[in-house]
Amino acid sequence: TAPFLASEHQHIRYNPLQDEWVLVSAHRMKRPWQGQVEPSLLETVPRHDPRNPLCPGATRANGEVNPHYEGTFLFDNDFPALQPDAPSPGPSDHPLFQAKAARGVCKVLCFHPWSDVTLPLMSIPEIRTVIDVWASVTEDLGAQYPWVQIFENKGAMMGCSNPHPHCQVWASSFLPDIAQREEKSQQAYQSQHGEPLLMEYGRQELLRKERLVLTSEHWLVLVPFWAVWPFQTLLLPRRHVRRLPELTPAERDDLALIMKKLLTKYDNLFETSFPYSMGWHGAPTGSEAGANWDHWQLHAHYYPPLLRSATVRKFMVGYEMLAQAQRDLTPEQAAERLRALPEVHYRLRQK
Amino acid sequence: TAPFLASEHQHIRYNPLQDEWVLVSAHRMKRPWQGQVEPSLLETVPRHDPRNPLCPGATRANGEVNPHYEGTFLFDNDFPALQPDAPSPGPSDHPLFQAKAARGVCKVLCFHPWSDVTLPLMSIPEIRTVIDVWASVTEDLGAQYPWVQIFENKGAMMGCSNPHPHCQVWASSFLPDIAQREEKSQQAYQSQHGEPLLMEYGRQELLRKERLVLTSEHWLVLVPFWAVWPFQTLLLPRRHVRRLPELTPAERDDLALIMKKLLTKYDNLFETSFPYSMGWHGAPTGSEAGANWDHWQLHAHYYPPLLRSATVRKFMVGYEMLAQAQRDLTPEQAAERLRALPEVHYRLRQK
Ligand SMILES: O=P(O)(O)O[C@H]1O[C@H](CO)[C@@H](O)[C@H](O)[C@H]1O
Ligand SMILES: O=P(O)(O)O[C@H]1O[C@H](CO)[C@@H](O)[C@H](O)[C@H]1O
Repeated sequence: TAPFLASEHQHIRYNPLQDEWVLVSAHRMKRPWQGQVEPSLLETVPRHDPRNPLCPGATRANGEVNPHYEGTFLFDNDFPALQPDAPSPGPSDHPLFQAKAARGVCKVLCFHPWSDVTLPLMSIPEIRTVIDVWASVTEDLGAQYPWVQIFENKGAMMGCSNPHPHCQVWASSFLPDIAQREEKSQQAYQSQHGEPLLMEYGRQELLRKERLVLTSEHWLVLVPFWAVWPFQTLLLPRRHVRRLPELTPAERDDLALIMKKLLTKYDNLFETSFPYSMGWHGAPTGSEAGANWDHWQLHAHYYPPLLRSATVRKFMVGYEMLAQAQRDLTPEQAAERLRALPEVHYRLRQK
Repeated sequence: TAPFLASEHQHIRYNPLQDEWVLVSAHRMKRPWQGQVEPSLLETVPRHDPRNPLCPGATRANGEVNPHYEGTFLFDNDFPALQPDAPSPGPSDHPLFQAKAARGVCKVLCFHPWSDVTLPLMSIPEIRTVIDVWASVTEDLGAQYPWVQIFENKGAMMGCSNPHPHCQVWASSFLPDIAQREEKSQQAYQSQHGEPLLMEYGRQELLRKERLVLTSEHWLVLVPFWAVWPFQTLLLPRRHVRRLPELTPAERDDLALIMKKLLTKYDNLFETSFPYSMGWHGAPTGSEAGANWDHWQLHAHYYPPLLRSATVRKFMVGYEMLAQAQRDLTPEQAAERLRALPEVHYRLRQK
């Protein structure tokens, strides 16, 4: 039989952070695509639209008027999935019917007063301001809640219903499912190997190099060995950092720079405003913030859906929903493509 | 504080089958939707298109010509994610870089010679034929492989690239991730409670009634207590059945009937050909098929994405991908809506 080649021969890979397997079938890239094509992105969003509830000076659903903000703007989500005062469902009467109380808050963070920019088109100081708000909102909400989830849904394809550049912050009274999985895995790795899982992982990727996308003084971006989405990446600090507020000013500046580079590469890949969901994971907060969370390493996940072009995405459906995640190109191939892309945004090049 | 009302107060629920939690925030249904709207379905698919590789007599990508089949037609996927002879990646050199061999086969099953029908528009004997092929393909591929995943992606929204009614069968040399989770949960439940998890669950739902959608002599359809997708359902035999081939002729006839009823209700909900991914889960097969799998109960999951109308879906994005699944109406509300729908298909009514 032929020698094993990851790009030719299907195999499964293990995600030790979330305790999951993925089926890698890179030869599937040869398959023609005749299915659903996504609508092209409207490239011309007006810079200011007084009817857009995220714009400075606009009136929101609850009648509140936004300030004429000039930098970022953080406010309470008008349709929050989590509210601070929901009553408890009470004790469960059967092990197969378990419900628990959920309390929390949902906030929206506008990145910029203009609707026609995105993070990769913003300046380094502007991105730095966003990072500072991420750190401070983690600190503020983390005083009360054990988990503060910062996430950005970018693009209509990712369920984002407003083109104005923004992210969300959902803080909860419970540790969400994926946080629990990462807690368990990192805890187990630390007790077995005496160091944080993601510290060793980052070091290994620096040695192996084939999945690196970007490196800087303080940060790494790589396509994880177990990536599920075609161009999924993991953003890691080099230093052992448990939570966003611990980042030094130098690390924050450097983060702004590497984020701008990564997101520029993403936009350049298919010459489109690249859709994705991204989010930050750090050690739990709340009343147990003082416990030993040294097994945690801060990181951000980027999950972009596009596979072949600006309009052809990867569908995570049938087999993926019922059996196991499946990907159509190897993480090494994805990293190589991202590495090769220019760090100047295609929209600035064309001018 | 107000007494707890599931339809008013967010809470979390536990999925004991897959060991996951879901956030239920039914008050979010009040939120207006300004995001992506799905293209309406092309209602007029030609009955026969000689260029469609799934049609009788058509030539496929590999040059093979389909027979002029009159019932179902099962053949090898021309772009399989799993092939029978892939070499092994060899031993892993590090616990964070684990890869394993994956072998298998991928088949496609056409349900009917016509492209312009779907399961709910097929006759009971025609659906019964599909069920018989599901059973026999499980038996055939299960002789060699430990897992045979039958799944249907219906609708372009669910990544289905061909409107001809069909499903897929992917058999693998490994137990996929979700199969492993269900194995672990059912095994643990059996050893703790002395009976299969899903047998007790079905019995409880028959008593509680509020999540039932359909019942028949041999089957139940319900919206599970822990449903993630808006109108997700679980289809269960009443008798303890481990795998599809064990179904009796009477159970198969009754299954055809209840599937037709369920899928008709689905189509009637938003008067559209309702998209979904569905699939069957039964006890593992292959060389260990003879072991004790009594903790397994055969079942099918239906995961439909639509939330509010034929064109507005639920997006499982940011928070869902990074923290925890979240749903916008309660499973009880969904079951009530499905229960109330007629069992005659809207397209037959209009004639
Ligand atoms: O039906 P196809 O073309 O094989 O492909 C479809 O189903 C597969 C299995 O769920 C997915 O991996 C693909 O993303 C989807 O487009
Ligand atoms: O609150 P938004 O941005 O309108 O909603 C979006 O993000 C939420 C959190 O990931 C999802 O639950 C919604 O399905 C999605 O449309």
